[in-house]
Amino acid sequence: MGVFFDEINIKTNGEPDIVDITESIQKIVNNSTFKDGLACIFVAGSTGAITTIEYEPGLMKDLPRVLEKIAPKGIHYDHHETWHDDNGHSHVRASLMGPSLTIPFKNRTLIHGTWQQIVFVELDTSPRNRNLIVQLIGE
Amino acid sequence: MGVFFDEINIKTNGEPDIVDITESIQKIVNNSTFKDGLACIFVAGSTGAITTIEYEPGLMKDLPRVLEKIAPKGIHYDHHETWHDDNGHSHVRASLMGPSLTIPFKNRTLIHGTWQQIVFVELDTSPRNRNLIVQLIGE
Amino acid sequence: MGVFFDEINIKTNGEPDIVDITESIQKIVNNSTFKDGLACIFVAGSTGAITTIEYEPGLMKDLPRVLEKIAPKGIHYDHHETWHDDNGHSHVRASLMGPSLTIPFKNRTLIHGTWQQIVFVELDTSPRNRNLIVQLIGE
Repeated sequence: MGVFFDEINIKTNGEPDIVDITESIQKIVNNSTFKDGLACIFVAGSTGAITTIEYEPGLMKDLPRVLEKIAPKGIHYDHHETWHDDNGHSHVRASLMGPSLTIPFKNRTLIHGTWQQIVFVELDTSPRNRNLIVQLIGE
Repeated sequence: MGVFFDEINIKTNGEPDIVDITESIQKIVNNSTFKDGLACIFVAGSTGAITTIEYEPGLMKDLPRVLEKIAPKGIHYDHHETWHDDNGHSHVRASLMGPSLTIPFKNRTLIHGTWQQIVFVELDTSPRNRNLIVQLIGE
Repeated sequence: MGVFFDEINIKTNGEPDIVDITESIQKIVNNSTFKDGLACIFVAGSTGAITTIEYEPGLMKDLPRVLEKIAPKGIHYDHHETWHDDNGHSHVRASLMGPSLTIPFKNRTLIHGTWQQIVFVELDTSPRNRNLIVQLIGE
């Protein structure tokens, strides 16, 4: 048993970017010496989220549309008064979705559905360089 | 320390089925040799979710009613144009709720509240056979 | 490799309390012998949630306001008929947000953004004593 640490660096164009990181995480599993274990993917930042989705163009529009209904852009957020910022909706959406995903791997392969990809959901309003943490525990 | 893998197979009737899987996961902990550790429950598929809830009949109606408000069934989703499918709302709800739950166990017992059960939330529109992954890491 | 268990005890005033638990979790990492690993924070109870947020006063109002829109207080929930209770909205919000967060630590330090804190979100209607479980796996 051991711990294996790596990072994924991506550039986004700001919302509503959704980036498929499945292959990047699989490569990290490949680079470790582990056969079986858990992978934790974590975004160090409060305006992004990690989840899974069927990565096809339709849902890349549908998910942001529902997020816009839950916490609309352009309305008043008290967050804007704290920092004279414009991304209160980004923060709220990120807290609701969550910054972390834990996913099992077995026989050196991430377990996920054929139509299910691991994604980073950019929720901030402007382009960002994102550093995603991947911590494996396995044997 | 080690890794222990098992699966839970369930049949659902499609939405709004919510299945209590607490006992099934506890049995997997029993079948392992571990006293303390973490259990990760993961749905390999993009139209289901894992969470906890007080498993009583009222909330089995309340949670689906709120999900219907967040991402209504029967309205337009771009996902439907990709596959001529009818379950865009299922995918969006699943991505928001998340496919994974990590829960600690101690002294061979899952830690959860008396009125808190671990559930699989079926979000797809038709009956499904679901294969839930349970990966334990413990000692 | 090993498992390290501890608890965080907090008192809340009921909704919409949001409590910054980042330092408490960092202290548990300090008290363990581990350098690298994963920390799982879990609320044993069905009316609270764990997530991350930028812990500033504006967002402490914005997040509850959006939760109130998603699952309003004071409307009908079937849960109220089961127990003659008043917190159906608390349960639904908790199931949507999730009871668990898994976060990596490295070199004895929790990994998170400068403007990102780990929080317990009290969703119940009355003051509560909360026992948050922290289970570390590391080496």
